Amino acid sequence: MSELITKAKKAKRAVTDLITKSISQKNQALQFIADQLIQDTPYILQENKRDIEHAQAAGLHDSLVDRLILNEQRIKDMAEALEQLTFLPDPTGNVLETLKRPNGLMIEKVTVPLGVIGMIYEARPNVTVDASSLCLKTGNAVLLRGSSSAIHSNKALVSVIHKALEKSDLPTDSVQLIEDTSRDTAAQLFKLNEYLDVLIPRGGKALIQAVVEHASVPVLETGAGNCHVFIDESADPQMAIDIVLNAKTQRPSVCNSIETVLVEEAWAKEHIKELVEILIERGVELRVDQNIHELFPSLFLATEEDWQTEYLNYILAIKTVRGTTEAIEHINQYGSKHSEAIITESEENVRSFFQLVDAAALYHNASTRFTDGFEFGFGAEIGISTQKLHARGPMGLPALSSSKYIIKGKGQIRE
Amino acid sequence: MSELITKAKKAKRAVTDLITKSISQKNQALQFIADQLIQDTPYILQENKRDIEHAQAAGLHDSLVDRLILNEQRIKDMAEALEQLTFLPDPTGNVLETLKRPNGLMIEKVTVPLGVIGMIYEARPNVTVDASSLCLKTGNAVLLRGSSSAIHSNKALVSVIHKALEKSDLPTDSVQLIEDTSRDTAAQLFKLNEYLDVLIPRGGKALIQAVVEHASVPVLETGAGNCHVFIDESADPQMAIDIVLNAKTQRPSVCNSIETVLVEEAWAKEHIKELVEILIERGVELRVDQNIHELFPSLFLATEEDWQTEYLNYILAIKTVRGTTEAIEHINQYGSKHSEAIITESEENVRSFFQLVDAAALYHNASTRFTDGFEFGFGAEIGISTQKLHARGPMGLPALSSSKYIIKGKGQIRE
Repeated sequence: MSELITKAKKAKRAVTDLITKSISQKNQALQFIADQLIQDTPYILQENKRDIEHAQAAGLHDSLVDRLILNEQRIKDMAEALEQLTFLPDPTGNVLETLKRPNGLMIEKVTVPLGVIGMIYEARPNVTVDASSLCLKTGNAVLLRGSSSAIHSNKALVSVIHKALEKSDLPTDSVQLIEDTSRDTAAQLFKLNEYLDVLIPRGGKALIQAVVEHASVPVLETGAGNCHVFIDESADPQMAIDIVLNAKTQRPSVCNSIETVLVEEAWAKEHIKELVEILIERGVELRVDQNIHELFPSLFLATEEDWQTEYLNYILAIKTVRGTTEAIEHINQYGSKHSEAIITESEENVRSFFQLVDAAALYHNASTRFTDGFEFGFGAEIGISTQKLHARGPMGLPALSSSKYIIKGKGQIRE
Repeated sequence: MSELITKAKKAKRAVTDLITKSISQKNQALQFIADQLIQDTPYILQENKRDIEHAQAAGLHDSLVDRLILNEQRIKDMAEALEQLTFLPDPTGNVLETLKRPNGLMIEKVTVPLGVIGMIYEARPNVTVDASSLCLKTGNAVLLRGSSSAIHSNKALVSVIHKALEKSDLPTDSVQLIEDTSRDTAAQLFKLNEYLDVLIPRGGKALIQAVVEHASVPVLETGAGNCHVFIDESADPQMAIDIVLNAKTQRPSVCNSIETVLVEEAWAKEHIKELVEILIERGVELRVDQNIHELFPSLFLATEEDWQTEYLNYILAIKTVRGTTEAIEHINQYGSKHSEAIITESEENVRSFFQLVDAAALYHNASTRFTDGFEFGFGAEIGISTQKLHARGPMGLPALSSSKYIIKGKGQIRE
């Protein structure tokens, strides 16, 4: 039997054991993992170094190597995140609804763990600890499939987690690493409906696309963000500029930063110079439409491709629009249904924007950068869902739960 | 452009129009469809006759032909179901959560329609009306892809729906039939992520499997039910027998009927004869394990395959087990996570059963036949979900909705 199937079977058995554990047993296990990470920091860093050396020898890009790097501070941060998690409420075991039927049946809808979660991710070893802890907290077993470039770090981290789990009341098979990082194994994982309840990809667009395209296991799609700020005619100029700067430059590499600004014509006439100049001053490369290009002939002229691109960098497209309707149409055509903002003083335009824009998070007079489980007050984040089933927007712990109906009778049969 | 893409684009545009309509406008449209169905009954029956004649000429199995047949009563039933639907509350536009953040951001989680739903189904023309009305009620646009054998009935029904929609305030493109019933078109539909928000298969196991296997559009999986009744040692004999008879014979062709009975040894010793005899008397063909076979050598001996099979017919497998633990293991190994019942007077065994059996609906001392949106009091049913994401068990109108976050600020930016 392949490694994958052997471990999948073990994960399924672990679920039945996990479901009998109390939240304090789960929290204790999280605390043990936090302690063990600190204790075994030298070992983790030593194994992490092997991955870094491999990556450098293989000539990997600096930014990729950077994602691989663990250090004392990063491990401390992981341990702290684990401790924070112990303070959050259990999303499972809650009664969501109680229905008493005329025939006397008592129906309860109760939250339960999802079961076995497949986590497929790229070269960030911190995801190994993050995903494991979120799954344990919610009573799920997890099969981790990281990338080959992080294999030594991942093995080390999972061995540390196992050491901690052995001291705890939870089964060690709750967390397992698939060590075979071949593409064939990933392809098998995509189709493992018999054992997996859900598959969560974490990483770049290509990975997520591959999973969505090929998986038959239900997928929690997270990720891509082609987000916009629309500056309406009545927008406060300073507020609009502050929000655009924040949404573009505070951290351009993340999904809730913006890629295009839409500017209403009348506002543009008054304030576009100020906006363009400050963006250039902040080092943002601009791609502008014909109208703005006439004022700033030295800027790049935007092409169709610019409206579609998630730059994830200090690049921003700017387009003038005739009003809210055109802005909404542009966003619904090119946006990735992630986070969209309108800056305006018109309540009517806010209403249209909120009603008609199809996205997970819609903002009035605030930066799109707030789309985040921690900023929303969830205390944890699985990712940001850009699909509409199960969970949409920032996902906290409840996104890793499902429900079952429990029906109590006295011999009722159906007529 | 292909028919599919043209209609998918229209559906996407219809969504933006639909979202501005009030629930009374939607209910009015449903009422218009109900009226139009009654008014155009002769036309519908005439077109339906063409499908029936084709099917008979092609030598289709009687049970398949039966599914195709519409008559006055069936059309009246459809119209009545439409009227019933107008009385149900709107699952969209509701505020699920309000979060006020320390930075002053006001976050609301609001329910919204899913968007464009792809419905793929087999030779039951009633699904055309049923799916359309559930989607309209919930503000969704629908692309219907029925089978070629029902094409004339489906075209007639959709033209009747369009006639009614033209009188209403809703866009007629809210409901569209894909008339090209080729496999290629179905395969394209599976991958239409750009336009479809969700795909719902309704039909037999093969159809559902094909959709789950090949679709990249998120799927609401409904269907297969390999359900069990477990009779525990302390079970009331009459209650146990009544429930087994009901769960097997009241309507064996549906997913919430049972396929296997598990009987605890001590109970079997006392009562298995009575149970077996009454089942045979009711015309149920039995497949039994070695223990029972010794008492009834004329019965078929069950094979591994029997534990896996959803007979959907007057056939039942029976297996003796040593107790609740073995029963739970058997169910978790062979069940399809649909509906499972325990008959017992032991509260402890109920607790274990409820906690450890992984299924959408768990019963204590009641028939599995109650797993149904109407029996649960939902007033409508999209299907019964056997997956764990989004919705599990009987799905009422809320399963056709999603949510979005609406965030109101005063210029907040992220530090």
